[in-house]
Amino acid sequence: MYDKFDQGLKISKAQIKNIKLLHQKKYRQQYKKIFVEGVRLVEECMATSHIETLIVSQKNELNDRINNIVKQARALQIPVITATEKEFEQISDTCTPQGVALVAHTTEKQIDFKNASFILVLDHIKDPGNVGTMIRSADWFGCDGILLDAQSVELNNPKVVRSTMGSIFRIPCVETRDLYQQLLQLKKDGFRIIAADGNAETSSYDLKKSGKDVVVIGSEAEGLSENLLPLFDKTVSIPKQGAGESLNAAVAAGVLLYQLSR
Amino acid sequence: MYDKFDQGLKISKAQIKNIKLLHQKKYRQQYKKIFVEGVRLVEECMATSHIETLIVSQKNELNDRINNIVKQARALQIPVITATEKEFEQISDTCTPQGVALVAHTTEKQIDFKNASFILVLDHIKDPGNVGTMIRSADWFGCDGILLDAQSVELNNPKVVRSTMGSIFRIPCVETRDLYQQLLQLKKDGFRIIAADGNAETSSYDLKKSGKDVVVIGSEAEGLSENLLPLFDKTVSIPKQGAGESLNAAVAAGVLLYQLSR
Repeated sequence: MYDKFDQGLKISKAQIKNIKLLHQKKYRQQYKKIFVEGVRLVEECMATSHIETLIVSQKNELNDRINNIVKQARALQIPVITATEKEFEQISDTCTPQGVALVAHTTEKQIDFKNASFILVLDHIKDPGNVGTMIRSADWFGCDGILLDAQSVELNNPKVVRSTMGSIFRIPCVETRDLYQQLLQLKKDGFRIIAADGNAETSSYDLKKSGKDVVVIGSEAEGLSENLLPLFDKTVSIPKQGAGESLNAAVAAGVLLYQLSR
Repeated sequence: MYDKFDQGLKISKAQIKNIKLLHQKKYRQQYKKIFVEGVRLVEECMATSHIETLIVSQKNELNDRINNIVKQARALQIPVITATEKEFEQISDTCTPQGVALVAHTTEKQIDFKNASFILVLDHIKDPGNVGTMIRSADWFGCDGILLDAQSVELNNPKVVRSTMGSIFRIPCVETRDLYQQLLQLKKDGFRIIAADGNAETSSYDLKKSGKDVVVIGSEAEGLSENLLPLFDKTVSIPKQGAGESLNAAVAAGVLLYQLSR
């Protein structure tokens, strides 16, 4: 009835060691690989990425969703390796591992700036969950790409990848060393640079898409980078109707992308 | 120059033990107390809640923001106790403790349904970060209260509290055992029940506030609870303009609250 996992190879000590290295930024960068785990994320990744290996925990032999993933991997000629529950815990980055993971090659997609009409820019966003959620929202609302400065969290951080729910494998996400120069170039190329700023007088309600929009989101703690301020064509705030002190950065980004995608 | 922390009492072993108990749901419920940590959250809590004790780590003696918190606590006659870095790590719930925390009494606020015009309902939302972020958004967009079913995460969960950034101390949040009956009552009382549903034909763009609105958000994994479906006056979806598979539940909630607060 089930496609037995034990037809797959057993994970070796060397493989465990190599996978654990991918929990560190420097090895992700060196090997150009990432480690991705969890049922839903693995499902979403399978179709979009170049997968090196699928790893399943033996305890999942009777889990239908994971069996389907294994079948799909075999159909795509992706090597499947099995791990005991204990071995899987060693490679996992989460507290409650779901028992399915993969190693994928990272490929840097480029943003096609010439044909782009809608770009999200993240300025000093350090929370990986927020960055991942913003990438997911950008994918939903039709952005053509995401630019992050070097002070934002690394894109291949496992929590970022998890929070994107697979969007990171579809939408071009690019880290830039000089966000100022990049934004200046976009401005020269006819893009309108809009920044979210809680103190801005312009309400997001009045925001309409222009066909060439860049939305800049700054950090909740530090706000927008000062050197970028001269580049903004518009700063907008999301009208507060209650007593709240602030909005979560990923919610603010979602609301502005929603408003501009209309 | 600085208000020395060592004028405060040193934390005792019994206090450490009691605080650690508050990491567990059953003791939070038994003692009607919660443990709250982090600079910004503690700052936001000080004004709104009944605080039992403030706890500071000695390593923060030169931190201005924490010194201000200590001064404020003394002005409010809140006992300040100090902990060594090691002791603080023992009571902390986070990986990188900021060295400031408090114990507050939980008080269940009631929602004033008679005068309410805007209520957020959470149905089976299990992710504490999402629940906290939604409470924060509801506070921003002017909701009068938040109702959660018993299958959603506990409100006093430390991650929920942290993600609200203090909103949980301002806006009434109520756990309900029978969400169906509560919604039915709200419907009878003239509220329009709107539910977020990715498959709904009505676009959120067409949503306008009625003055008596309830917004129901279901879980990303399971969707809306089936028994609630007959109660919905409207199901709405947030138009997808890109290739994304889904939106984060807290972003979807933020967008709908934004649309309805207009």
